[in-house]
Amino acid sequence: MTGGYLEDIEVGDSLKAGPYLVSKDEIIRFASQYDPRPFHLDEEAAARSVFAGLSASAAHTFAIFISLTSKLQPPLHALAGMGYDELRLPNPVRPEDALDLESIILEKRVSKSKPDRGIVRNQVTLRNQKREAVLQCFSSVLVARRPDPKAST
Amino acid sequence: MTGGYLEDIEVGDSLKAGPYLVSKDEIIRFASQYDPRPFHLDEEAAARSVFAGLSASAAHTFAIFISLTSKLQPPLHALAGMGYDELRLPNPVRPEDALDLESIILEKRVSKSKPDRGIVRNQVTLRNQKREAVLQCFSSVLVARRPDPKAST
Repeated sequence: MTGGYLEDIEVGDSLKAGPYLVSKDEIIRFASQYDPRPFHLDEEAAARSVFAGLSASAAHTFAIFISLTSKLQPPLHALAGMGYDELRLPNPVRPEDALDLESIILEKRVSKSKPDRGIVRNQVTLRNQKREAVLQCFSSVLVARRPDPKAST
Repeated sequence: MTGGYLEDIEVGDSLKAGPYLVSKDEIIRFASQYDPRPFHLDEEAAARSVFAGLSASAAHTFAIFISLTSKLQPPLHALAGMGYDELRLPNPVRPEDALDLESIILEKRVSKSKPDRGIVRNQVTLRNQKREAVLQCFSSVLVARRPDPKAST
């Protein structure tokens, strides 16, 4: 990985990834293991639920968001996710949806205790092909600083 | 499901589920699909990372939390997750961890627009066998009210 260091990103930058194509099989397989409620597993039960049709588990939608963070362009060299605020799922994820991630840089700062890294705060939106938000949050990510080529070890 | 309606829970109630046993295979399998960063896949790369050893993806930890919400005792008849605030992962999830969920009811109210359901706010903590928190958040959940047996349809 050559870019994506703290020095390479600026407040206001928009990083993008996707599309991620969601199949009915994947929705059912994920829910079978982690959220086996009838409205994530069975189309008839789903039609009678508040979702009015088969939809992905919140955990599945969150996993798709995380999977797209490793494909952002321009890249972000994330060392770890630190936290997620105001996580909302305004619309359900449906079979055959194509999801795009947008991450807008809101803040960046160097870590006080560990000067080889920084903390970046992002406004995250995962949207479907109709441009409806299916996941929104603010994330805080630990990001590597560019190694100093003059540093001795 | 006979219990878990809005009428069955009170502010201050503590709902519990677990343990969920996390295997190294599951950590690697989940990360391979949704978070294929070296520190979630490979023990040597993980040893050199900020996690200092193999750890589960944040998305995997969140999925385990969601999976335990369907097993809470006493139960909560959740119709949908509405949102998650101040989601933090204070400690990594490691292979062979045994995770317990505790959900404490902070607020409950009847929906103004749809009187057959209510909104419950919970303080959520997922802990490992050392009683360290591995996930914390505040969740808002849509919960069914007990059907009125006298209601005509």
